[in-house]
Amino acid sequence: MLTRIDHIGIACFDLDRTVEFYRATYGFEVFHTEVNEEQGVREAMLRINGTDDGGASYLQLLEPVREDSTVAKWLAKNGEGVHHIAFGTADVDGDSEAIRGKGVRVLYDEPRTGSMGSRITFLHPKDCHGVLTELVTSAPVQH
Amino acid sequence: MLTRIDHIGIACFDLDRTVEFYRATYGFEVFHTEVNEEQGVREAMLRINGTDDGGASYLQLLEPVREDSTVAKWLAKNGEGVHHIAFGTADVDGDSEAIRGKGVRVLYDEPRTGSMGSRITFLHPKDCHGVLTELVTSAPVQH
Repeated sequence: MLTRIDHIGIACFDLDRTVEFYRATYGFEVFHTEVNEEQGVREAMLRINGTDDGGASYLQLLEPVREDSTVAKWLAKNGEGVHHIAFGTADVDGDSEAIRGKGVRVLYDEPRTGSMGSRITFLHPKDCHGVLTELVTSAPVQH
Repeated sequence: MLTRIDHIGIACFDLDRTVEFYRATYGFEVFHTEVNEEQGVREAMLRINGTDDGGASYLQLLEPVREDSTVAKWLAKNGEGVHHIAFGTADVDGDSEAIRGKGVRVLYDEPRTGSMGSRITFLHPKDCHGVLTELVTSAPVQH
């Protein structure tokens, strides 16, 4: 069961400049940064609010670290902007299997590692009215 | 001060079919529907979670009701997908003026009426790293 908007993933050309924009314009601070080698991105998580399922909602700012990453290709085509949205669930495995069973393409056979030790998968945007959609189960004791 | 992700605005060609996708796939239910004549859209709000500022986070599904609406033009160019993101604040007037003072273009001289009696304004996407960004102050006793 999906219980929150976990994050909005925003692709950018220059992570440091984009982080500074969000800090200077809105006062949002960096909660966490990491490089996800598998996804080919360097990212910053800005925590915006807590959620009533015990989690939180973030902006996830993404800069590609190699030209063959999906985010680099997306940026080359679309320019900067919202790359994906993510819903939080306590059970990414069960939910992604249930959604696969409804005919929506799930992009990974098994969930992979996402931000802050979470487990994630993605749904095909063409099956989701144009929205690349991620499902996230946070690592324990994240917040 | 922006205290929550208020909603993610998603543009679609057929609101009823898109509402049904979100219901059948994720179990999200319609919280509210309305037509905003000024914006030229018919919309459905799906409430996803409560937030720790006393508000909530929604998906806002948007179908244009006339061809000259900004959402109709956006759909013709981009196809279905994430159209904008919105942050909630208790003071859209003060925050939008402060942000204007930082050199970010605010699209309305004064906030206008948004979903569920809220007061809204938008920031120019070219000043926000490609993200059309809305600021929202909810109507009292909304939740």
